[in-house]
Amino acid sequence: MTTPQQGPALVVTPEGMTGRTGRYEKKLADLTGLFTDTEAFDARLATESDRVIYHVDEFRPSGDAGDLITGISTLSPGRVGTEFHMTRGHIHAQQDRTEIYHCLSGHGLMLMETLDGATVVTEMRPGVVAYVPPAHIHRSVNLGDTDLVTLFCYPADAGQDYDIIARSGGMRHRVVADGDGWRLEENGSYVPR
Amino acid sequence: MTTPQQGPALVVTPEGMTGRTGRYEKKLADLTGLFTDTEAFDARLATESDRVIYHVDEFRPSGDAGDLITGISTLSPGRVGTEFHMTRGHIHAQQDRTEIYHCLSGHGLMLMETLDGATVVTEMRPGVVAYVPPAHIHRSVNLGDTDLVTLFCYPADAGQDYDIIARSGGMRHRVVADGDGWRLEENGSYVPR
Repeated sequence: MTTPQQGPALVVTPEGMTGRTGRYEKKLADLTGLFTDTEAFDARLATESDRVIYHVDEFRPSGDAGDLITGISTLSPGRVGTEFHMTRGHIHAQQDRTEIYHCLSGHGLMLMETLDGATVVTEMRPGVVAYVPPAHIHRSVNLGDTDLVTLFCYPADAGQDYDIIARSGGMRHRVVADGDGWRLEENGSYVPR
Repeated sequence: MTTPQQGPALVVTPEGMTGRTGRYEKKLADLTGLFTDTEAFDARLATESDRVIYHVDEFRPSGDAGDLITGISTLSPGRVGTEFHMTRGHIHAQQDRTEIYHCLSGHGLMLMETLDGATVVTEMRPGVVAYVPPAHIHRSVNLGDTDLVTLFCYPADAGQDYDIIARSGGMRHRVVADGDGWRLEENGSYVPR
């Protein structure tokens, strides 16, 4: 039998992704400033500072323009006050670069915002593909009581600008618990760009 | 409650993808010339000419460079002689453009080939992400007895060159049944580029 070369052995499992080229974790302490209820945040920080709130496994073949970075994001369930666990969020440094997030398990939101402050959401359940259009700030929010796991894919030359959210005092809306569900609340600290 | 705008409602289901912007089907008659056993092919063609061998649902937001085309490919099981059902295969017209295929169900191969005729394969089972590097011709092959369903994603400006395979008399290797398994066989009609 002819023996071919094997392609990269990327396999998504409940534990993460084998064949990844990198992994990063964000602990509770890394999310200082994201949540409005600083008292609730500080109370959790006292005992859970090192708790991993989300982690990302990624396969980054190169940084070339036509290449694609692919990976798995795993966001734990939980709240800080009435706000749900969320990722830091970013916009692509090359703002015309887009991204997809394919929900593999859990229940959450892709919370998006245009540069002029319009909010766009995609509610994520297994099978949903959230599409992040050009020039949309985006972050994941976990609405459920299990991990929110998504497969993501974006152009390798996109880059990330995390600071755009801090500069405007957060995203325009916060996602807060409302009985068993959720609602959007205006972020009082928001400063239009 | 603040009512946000909704993102595109893309949902992958066993039947396809809701929210798609397009769908195409390839019937047996469209695959004339792909299989080596023309007698077996003609025999099937006599009764199954209109049978859909694979179909593709896609979401194509735009053709801009940073955009991503996302969809689902569903390749039926079956054989023509000893060869398994396969897609036509292509290389990206912009050859530096890459692609991922995330296997959602079934069992198959991503059969890849470099311009100088080296064969690269990724065996696909649920959870496997096949990564197609720059300048790799690629096609899907269904090794199993159920549909091979993959979520794909590639840069919107990639384009497709289907003719590259025909010009070299097919891909370098054929994927043929070998007992309960499979093997690669040199394609006798192959002409190096």
